[in-house]
Amino acid sequence: MTNMSRFFIGIDLGGTKIGGAVYDAITSDVLIERVIPTEAHQGCDEVLNRISRFIDELSHNDSLPSDDFGGIGLGLPGTIDFDRGAPELIPNLHSQWSGKPVVSILQEMTRRPVVLINDAHAFTLAEATLGAGAGKQTVVCFTIGTGIGGGIAIDGRVHQGLDGRSGIFGHHTIDPHGPPCGCGNNGCMEALASGPAITARAVKAVLQGLNTRITSLVDSDISQITPQIILQAAQEDDQIAKDILQRSGTYIGIGVANAITILSPECVIIGGGIAHLGEWILNPIWDEVRRRCFTAPIDKIEIQQAKLGPNAGMIGAAIWASQKL
Amino acid sequence: MTNMSRFFIGIDLGGTKIGGAVYDAITSDVLIERVIPTEAHQGCDEVLNRISRFIDELSHNDSLPSDDFGGIGLGLPGTIDFDRGAPELIPNLHSQWSGKPVVSILQEMTRRPVVLINDAHAFTLAEATLGAGAGKQTVVCFTIGTGIGGGIAIDGRVHQGLDGRSGIFGHHTIDPHGPPCGCGNNGCMEALASGPAITARAVKAVLQGLNTRITSLVDSDISQITPQIILQAAQEDDQIAKDILQRSGTYIGIGVANAITILSPECVIIGGGIAHLGEWILNPIWDEVRRRCFTAPIDKIEIQQAKLGPNAGMIGAAIWASQKL
Repeated sequence: MTNMSRFFIGIDLGGTKIGGAVYDAITSDVLIERVIPTEAHQGCDEVLNRISRFIDELSHNDSLPSDDFGGIGLGLPGTIDFDRGAPELIPNLHSQWSGKPVVSILQEMTRRPVVLINDAHAFTLAEATLGAGAGKQTVVCFTIGTGIGGGIAIDGRVHQGLDGRSGIFGHHTIDPHGPPCGCGNNGCMEALASGPAITARAVKAVLQGLNTRITSLVDSDISQITPQIILQAAQEDDQIAKDILQRSGTYIGIGVANAITILSPECVIIGGGIAHLGEWILNPIWDEVRRRCFTAPIDKIEIQQAKLGPNAGMIGAAIWASQKL
Repeated sequence: MTNMSRFFIGIDLGGTKIGGAVYDAITSDVLIERVIPTEAHQGCDEVLNRISRFIDELSHNDSLPSDDFGGIGLGLPGTIDFDRGAPELIPNLHSQWSGKPVVSILQEMTRRPVVLINDAHAFTLAEATLGAGAGKQTVVCFTIGTGIGGGIAIDGRVHQGLDGRSGIFGHHTIDPHGPPCGCGNNGCMEALASGPAITARAVKAVLQGLNTRITSLVDSDISQITPQIILQAAQEDDQIAKDILQRSGTYIGIGVANAITILSPECVIIGGGIAHLGEWILNPIWDEVRRRCFTAPIDKIEIQQAKLGPNAGMIGAAIWASQKL
């Protein structure tokens, strides 16, 4: 169903921050983007109270030309029970969120309709419509950080799949003999190409005593190694660091190549913290795509860094509300 | 655009046979299914003449309640240049087909509109709407024979992707260290799980002198080994044959598990010659899906053999015409 309302609110609920955006469905403009702390320690009910007050503030903003609000999209960092309007498995939040009927609670508090969306799907929807994939028919997104999430957008709509579980590229198998993954499978893209997988390669190099700048950059404290540190070493021409980024980009590239072969998108978007590695990661991704994609018209395909930054989730949640309500 | 015509003709052009179907878009019934030989040796122009006469026969059939024909869908066993309305790469037909503007030629001959579709996409569309996936929102199809093709259907429509190249599951990488594939990549699903890959495992076992029924079933002539022979040996309780089917099903299962993780379909359909291996292949596929799919709701997902048989391609081509014309 589509109503005629103009403004939609998107909320991106994270473990430490809550983002809120106001989206104008008539002009496709994002009018307000704000962030408040989650303060998750206060418990689920208090966080919901704060989200309700946050929504109230966002909708009573003097800069808005009218108060024609259609409803709210809430992005959740995990799986969703759409039948019950509740979070299912939300690894970064307390287990008390599981099964909590947040749709009915927030609808009662705000007196507006509420729809849920997975945060990687919200990211995908925002990037596919207003970001790096704007105007493209098929867009595949990867968010690569601690984990690897993703989404598929076709004609400006997210493909949800059964129970909203599509686009989980991080857990497709890219090496059947690969290392164990937290999900229970082995050889998942996430086990080989996520931030921790990249960091672990540098930790191993330092522990092995290899001659690398990474060791001095972290003062021999392996707990300080991050993808950002590896990037810094690579920029200082450290060969080990360059090899690690190359190898990691190769694994990301296998996953990207699979997405291209299976979906034939016009545009692949890489977001999340690892996207900041820029060319160091994009070049080996392209190498792997050229090496493995012979069925897709890769000359017409773009591989881009995400454009909307950390607010993509809240923006996508608002767009989702505008599409669903 | 959708017009109000009732009947649509689907043509499935193969290397040895041409299938033709008449589809009633009002009742969703398939009214006629016929097959004629391709006689490809007569050359491209003569085959097009024969297709035109075949279309004429199909549309002037006395059993049809009216002559309200909307147009023709032509399924091609390869890639398509949609801009030019021409085949691009059609491995099973003479190279003179490449670039031949078959849409304009057939439109002139038949005086009806013509649209093209890849044959695996036509198969997918037929199975997703009238076959094993009828009524399901997201359907993934695999056709496993000499090669592995496939398609993705969402809400009864085939996801085409850029240049109609989506759903090429056979060429996504399931083992980055795997054997070379004809496409130029290595470790493709097709290189590990197609009919020839399965046959090659039995050829190797026989050449190695392993104690297997396969050897006597083909009278020591390895050129006679087929998946059907391996099935027969397995049914006669031959352990080597059973191991080969198990291993092959495992590789198919990795590809199926990836499709499930990436697309979260309600239904996965296995077609093509290898589907006749039945439980011998479906059981290891399920084992692998259970071992690898932790993000999708697999209890709600069906993995089914294709239902429409060899006529799925012509039926899907007709449905495609009804959707596009």
